[in-house]
Amino acid sequence: MMSVRQVLDIVLSKTECLDSEVVALREAAYRVAAEDVLAPAGFPPFPASIMDGYAVVAADGPGEYPVAGQVMAGHPAGYVQEPGQVSYITTGAPMPEGADAVVRIEDTEPSGDRVRIKVGVQPGHDVRQAGSDMAPGTLVVRAGSVLGPAELGLAATAGAGTVAVTRRPRVSVLSTGDELQPPGEPLGPGQIPDSNHVMLSAMAQRMGCDVQPRTAIAEDTESQLGQEVRGSLRQSDLIITSGGISMGEADLLPKVLTDCGAEIHCERVLMKPGKPFTFSSWQAASGDRRCVVCSLPGNPASAMVTFLLFCVPALRRMLGHQPPALPRIQVVLDSELVPDSTRPEFHRVALAWDHDLHQGKGGYRAVSTGAQRSSRLLSMLDADALITVPPGSQPLPSGSTVAAIDLRHL
Amino acid sequence: MMSVRQVLDIVLSKTECLDSEVVALREAAYRVAAEDVLAPAGFPPFPASIMDGYAVVAADGPGEYPVAGQVMAGHPAGYVQEPGQVSYITTGAPMPEGADAVVRIEDTEPSGDRVRIKVGVQPGHDVRQAGSDMAPGTLVVRAGSVLGPAELGLAATAGAGTVAVTRRPRVSVLSTGDELQPPGEPLGPGQIPDSNHVMLSAMAQRMGCDVQPRTAIAEDTESQLGQEVRGSLRQSDLIITSGGISMGEADLLPKVLTDCGAEIHCERVLMKPGKPFTFSSWQAASGDRRCVVCSLPGNPASAMVTFLLFCVPALRRMLGHQPPALPRIQVVLDSELVPDSTRPEFHRVALAWDHDLHQGKGGYRAVSTGAQRSSRLLSMLDADALITVPPGSQPLPSGSTVAAIDLRHL
Repeated sequence: MMSVRQVLDIVLSKTECLDSEVVALREAAYRVAAEDVLAPAGFPPFPASIMDGYAVVAADGPGEYPVAGQVMAGHPAGYVQEPGQVSYITTGAPMPEGADAVVRIEDTEPSGDRVRIKVGVQPGHDVRQAGSDMAPGTLVVRAGSVLGPAELGLAATAGAGTVAVTRRPRVSVLSTGDELQPPGEPLGPGQIPDSNHVMLSAMAQRMGCDVQPRTAIAEDTESQLGQEVRGSLRQSDLIITSGGISMGEADLLPKVLTDCGAEIHCERVLMKPGKPFTFSSWQAASGDRRCVVCSLPGNPASAMVTFLLFCVPALRRMLGHQPPALPRIQVVLDSELVPDSTRPEFHRVALAWDHDLHQGKGGYRAVSTGAQRSSRLLSMLDADALITVPPGSQPLPSGSTVAAIDLRHL
Repeated sequence: MMSVRQVLDIVLSKTECLDSEVVALREAAYRVAAEDVLAPAGFPPFPASIMDGYAVVAADGPGEYPVAGQVMAGHPAGYVQEPGQVSYITTGAPMPEGADAVVRIEDTEPSGDRVRIKVGVQPGHDVRQAGSDMAPGTLVVRAGSVLGPAELGLAATAGAGTVAVTRRPRVSVLSTGDELQPPGEPLGPGQIPDSNHVMLSAMAQRMGCDVQPRTAIAEDTESQLGQEVRGSLRQSDLIITSGGISMGEADLLPKVLTDCGAEIHCERVLMKPGKPFTFSSWQAASGDRRCVVCSLPGNPASAMVTFLLFCVPALRRMLGHQPPALPRIQVVLDSELVPDSTRPEFHRVALAWDHDLHQGKGGYRAVSTGAQRSSRLLSMLDADALITVPPGSQPLPSGSTVAAIDLRHL
């Protein structure tokens, strides 16, 4: 059986960054930048006042001066300010030509039709010089970074109205199994609700994927499953299946995938939960259409854990997201964790910041989400992190510091 | 001047949880549950096999037995299994009546038209009892929690097809200032791009708000601004303005808000950046339409910081999100931070987990995002956290452990 690391390497080696498209900034939120964004001209584009007050010639010093005019933000002065004059100016307004400093309103006083400047200032005082917030050529967004609010604002400031982003991965989620009914539908004998589709779709959507709506659940017959898979291969970058890969006679998926022309790269992983995880890739006989298929176990906790460990990095790779791997942190166990005898276990824990840990330096305390049976989806509730418990016979004691995969930033 | 704490208390006291609506599970991703979701019946609804193998009567023990039938997932046995018989069974299939344990396929062997059971098992072996993953009445989603993938899957498992969520807050974002042009538009003399609208809209959208599209930028005239504000008050739960609240003659917003019938609760906050933050509330003369207005300073770093400190808790309160406040953690400073003499400063830092910190227990290292000038939006790039630097004359030394507001989970 392959290790998680080996399988992840295979998944990433078979997955490519998608092509890009140009979208309006307002449509680009939380997508991944496909190109660097530079500020060609710097910011601000002109020297601007930092305060509401009077633009002055610093060398004039304190005294009473006539007012040459008013300069409001967005309305540059139509004149050149001479020494011995001042101009009323608002925050963000361009400095009038000739003025070289600003005295804030609180340090001035009206005096008939003149203004008393009560303090002396140095040239440049309360003036934002052109390019001082952002020098010309500044890299404001790196390719591969997520376009969060700051990145969007910076791209706008840099003059961009559009931005190149990686195309949304097209994802099909297929739940297989005759026992599955859509959520909320009445259950016949032996039937259960399909919890995986809504769960896996939500995560893929949150990552910026274009997820096909749930149509029908593939029946556990070879022809029906083959039809679903064949159709999905042609219109998806990633197919996520769940169920249909254990050892039963109804577990047809590997056969169907092979019949459809997919190449299976891995059929078992040394891990708990998630052992039956299967990964395959497909390429159209003609043309360059490609698709990868992550086949997750049907049990919902197994499906979630294998999605997090394999599908998330695959999708990040498609999105050009740097880095594709999830971050690792150290946490302190709140209770002992008992290992499996042969497989590394990905134990789900809730994280709570404990201000008193590590002599008052603070740290994360990890609380198990309870019984880790792969069918028990409650083990994923509040699961902020996965702790890898190495196989063995000795429990990890309560209070020990262990590494954890941080899931909170998806 | 009021403190950040005082202003936050006012903001929360004037903000109410919105009403709820019922939506399909597939539409509910990352919205906030308005009601608890319970599992009335427990899960699984019937005793099910954990393995592919043979359902047996445990008391029969090892031996060769005739096969009474096949039980596939979704297709219950139409018969009662007698002692001395076995049934082929797949993972997830309901146990046939009469059988009380499962022997996995690897521990069996075909023998003509019979099957050799090679091991003895206890009653209940490899059987998931009804209700064992989720007892009847289990609380699977708490009101006030975000419906992430696990919550959605659990709601489905509990039998829900729909879920009650708080209504999306209706948010209007108004950028004021004659100098502002939409992102990407050519700039005339004295003009700059409006970076705030795209930035603030993205955050509000990510939190699940229904954000009005950017129409026009309100001109800095009383009548134009009044018209924008009046229209927005009637159709919004929260108005976010930026600009128009400093001391210049063109800063009309407080007057306009008052003229529109809003009550101003705070006009200045002891903080850096963000001092001009203004908060007001409005209630329709007849009917129960209400709206709160967060007026942010125009400088983009100030707008972001005040959005995070005041608008995020207000929106979380509207969404019923528990708790409304952002989490605090401790971090280790990578360089010294110089305080302001009179105001607490919210210094923006990037966080990097350092596995070697605190004698190998690990912790966050905080790296300043550079010059913190309120016009310098680059200070928000990679800003994972805000460190409150108390006013004073002594710098916070490099290497010290300080509290930080964690911004990464928005």
